[in-house]
Parts: sequence; structure tokens; C-alpha cells
Amino acid sequence: MTKRFKITVEYDGRPFTGWQAQKDTVTVQEEIEKAIFSFSGEKLRITTAGRTDSGVHALGQVASFDLDMNITPLKLREALNSTLRPNPISILEAFEVNKDFSARFSAKRRHYLYKIINRRPPLTFEKGQAWHIPIALDYEAMHEAAQLLLGEHDFTTFRNVKCQAKSPVKTLDRLDVTRMGDLIEITVTAESFLHNQVRSMVGALHLVGRGKWLKKDLKKALEAKDRQEGGFNAPPDGLYFLKVDY
Amino acid sequence: MTKRFKITVEYDGRPFTGWQAQKDTVTVQEEIEKAIFSFSGEKLRITTAGRTDSGVHALGQVASFDLDMNITPLKLREALNSTLRPNPISILEAFEVNKDFSARFSAKRRHYLYKIINRRPPLTFEKGQAWHIPIALDYEAMHEAAQLLLGEHDFTTFRNVKCQAKSPVKTLDRLDVTRMGDLIEITVTAESFLHNQVRSMVGALHLVGRGKWLKKDLKKALEAKDRQEGGFNAPPDGLYFLKVDY
Repeated sequence: MTKRFKITVEYDGRPFTGWQAQKDTVTVQEEIEKAIFSFSGEKLRITTAGRTDSGVHALGQVASFDLDMNITPLKLREALNSTLRPNPISILEAFEVNKDFSARFSAKRRHYLYKIINRRPPLTFEKGQAWHIPIALDYEAMHEAAQLLLGEHDFTTFRNVKCQAKSPVKTLDRLDVTRMGDLIEITVTAESFLHNQVRSMVGALHLVGRGKWLKKDLKKALEAKDRQEGGFNAPPDGLYFLKVDY
Repeated sequence: MTKRFKITVEYDGRPFTGWQAQKDTVTVQEEIEKAIFSFSGEKLRITTAGRTDSGVHALGQVASFDLDMNITPLKLREALNSTLRPNPISILEAFEVNKDFSARFSAKRRHYLYKIINRRPPLTFEKGQAWHIPIALDYEAMHEAAQLLLGEHDFTTFRNVKCQAKSPVKTLDRLDVTRMGDLIEITVTAESFLHNQVRSMVGALHLVGRGKWLKKDLKKALEAKDRQEGGFNAPPDGLYFLKVDY
């Protein structure tokens, strides 16, 4: 009896060229698939809610797959976690789910977190785990401008040229900028995103935070529907795939 | 005109055999002293508030030293930070202070933080930066028992045999155990500590959290004034030198 499983995955993205399996590189997907194979002998492809890029992290990535082997969700989690060492990939939860569940297609909303450390001194603990910006940022101006991007828009300006989505139109549910000490957190929610959309929006918002862009410049960039108007991508270091609502 | 400086230092302790300069090892103290020498040409020893052990971290270590060179505190911080790369050592603040200031002898209270991640799945981001305990801990029992250790006691039970302090008597001002999700934080304050005292107290408290020790066992261990009764040292991974009151 084949069972379908859903797993929640945390990973430090630094050693990986992203989620998706590719030739001659180390990816999160392949490390998990190799781990599954090593204790089940089953060669399979797993489905995911979000194919993160090289260096991007996850606190609550979700994947699903079918297994013929008779194993409980708890034992599956333990087997995966012990096999995955020393990779910085940790299976936080595992559940058995219905056959109609897909980590990708059943996802209702995806949540991302972007971390900026805004201080002059270099980073120690957070190196590679946050975007270090030594120039003072006005997070309130960033938050206010961010609200312009909520709702349904053509996000071509904030889309990687390699993006394979059929339409550049997406609906943004939430884009909040908060600050606690040196840490600026940007939380973003939508049903789905274009390729590089979060990093591209954060790149533009950081220009607002530095006073280089006003709210109206962000509006103009969005309305231009032109990648050239988008500023640039924030580095992968600060980006975390946070969680998925099903 | 010689100036005396006080610096606040953050470091990830993993690559270092601790703070104090030693032959044939890489230490935080020597990396900072080498950095000072490289831009000032002055060979000196710096004084510190807390000589952390191998692998122990700091969020607000304090050191002081004299320089003949004419430099502002701001420029000193910048010069140190650029010279210290790629070491995970960051100078957060630098001030000029009076000649009677000593990072060590002027310290009124020292604060440590100990981080435990209490969850079954392995660590990714916090590996080496927290103590991973997969068995459920009762943090409330830990907090309650911890209060026994407050005040003036002979802490021989929680003292490394190599400790060079003249007296084993210390006064503990604060020992709080709090929990937020998987993260258990233990905050400790005293004028000064014995060698390994914090790690040794945390090691004992974790036995209380696991239900292996009751409050009365901790009391008995303290009153025994015997290192053999102390349980064991918590690993350096979770220990952070937090700040100093002057």
C-alpha cells in the first residue's frame, strides 16, 4: 500500500545551489531524495511548495512524495534526519496525507521572511543568514511604500527574466516591514510568487529605506512593468521560505 | 598623549580556542592584538572582562587598552573591523575612557546567556550556537530549582578543578530560565564567576529539566561543595558572554 507523506523542512541554504535537482551541483531536493533512497531503496522525485534559489534558506519548506515501504511518519522523520547528516537540512515534521494532497498544488498561501541586519559593524553569527546593510535605513518609510504593492498587479518589474510563470500578474496579501534593534524583518505573503519576486521587491524597498527612492518612485517602477526599472535583487543571504498554508 | 580605549566585542567562538592568548592556537585576544598592531605598530596586551573558554561566544564582551597613536574611537572601530576580516569578530562600539578604567577590575556585574534548543529534529542554523537537547525539558522546574543558587554560596561543586580564583565563594544575582517555542534561555548575573561555573550550573539544571534531579538534589549538590556532585559541564556551544555593567 503506497502512502503519501508531507514533510516540513528547515535548511541553511549556503552549501546548496538551491532546492531543485540539477546536474553536477548539490541541491536540497537531491540530498533528501538520496536519503529516502538509502533507507527505502525507492528512487523518486519529491514535490515542493517553493523551489528556492541558491543560498536561500527555509524554516518551513514543505514537500510531498509517495512511498511503497511500510513506515510510520515518525520513523520516516527519524530515518531522514539521521541519513541527512551532516547536511544542514532538518525534517521538522512528517505526516501521512491523502492521495490528493500536493505540496505544490494544494498550497493556498506561501510566506517568506527577509532579514536585514542594519548596523555599521560587520556580521559574525548572521553572516550568510541576513543581508548586512551598514547605512541607516528608515524602516517606516519602507513599510509605508510597501503597502503600494499589495493586491493584484502585473509584477513584471520584479520578475527575473528567466521566470517561467505564464502570467506576470500576482496578488500580494501582505508585505510588512518591522524593526527590533538592528534587525529589520520583511514578511511577505501571497498564493504564489514570480521568480526572484521577493528579493527584487526587497531590493527596491531598501532604496526607499536609504532615501534614494520615494514612495512615488516605487509606484512608477511597478507601473512601468519593466525589469530595467526594478532596482536590483537583494542577496539570497537574508531570504527564508517561512511556511505554507494549505 | 596615550589614550585609553574601551571596546565592546561580538564573536562566534567556534574557530577559537577561547579568549586568552596561548601558544600555537588562534584566540580572540591575539586576533584583536594583531589587528591593533597592524595599523598602529603598537604591541600590547588588552585587558578583558571575561576570559571565555574554547568555543564560547560573546555578544557584548568588553576589553580595554592604551594606544599612543592619535586616533578617534570611531576610526579605531573601523580600522579594527576591517583588519579583523574574515575572523567572526566584530567591534560593536569603541569609546575613549578615563585612565582609571579597567575592563576587568571596573566591572560591577557580568551577564551570561545560555541557549538550549529543545526539539527532536537536528539543528541547522544554530549548530554550534546552542546546546541541542532532543529530550523534552521542563523549563519551569529548571527555573524554580535555579532560584536555590541565588545569593552567596561556596560554589565548589560548580567549579572547574583548574579554576584559579582565590575563593570558591560567589554571589549569584540572577538565574532565570525562560522558554519561547523550542528555545530555552538561561540568563545569569553575578559580579564574577568561577571557571566553568555557568556551564556547570546549566549542566545540573538540565538534569532537573529532564526529571533526573529534583530540587533537593540540586540543593544537596551545592551543599556538598564537591566537584564530583556537580553533574557535568554543558557544552560551550550555547554559552554567550552577554554584557558587563560598569
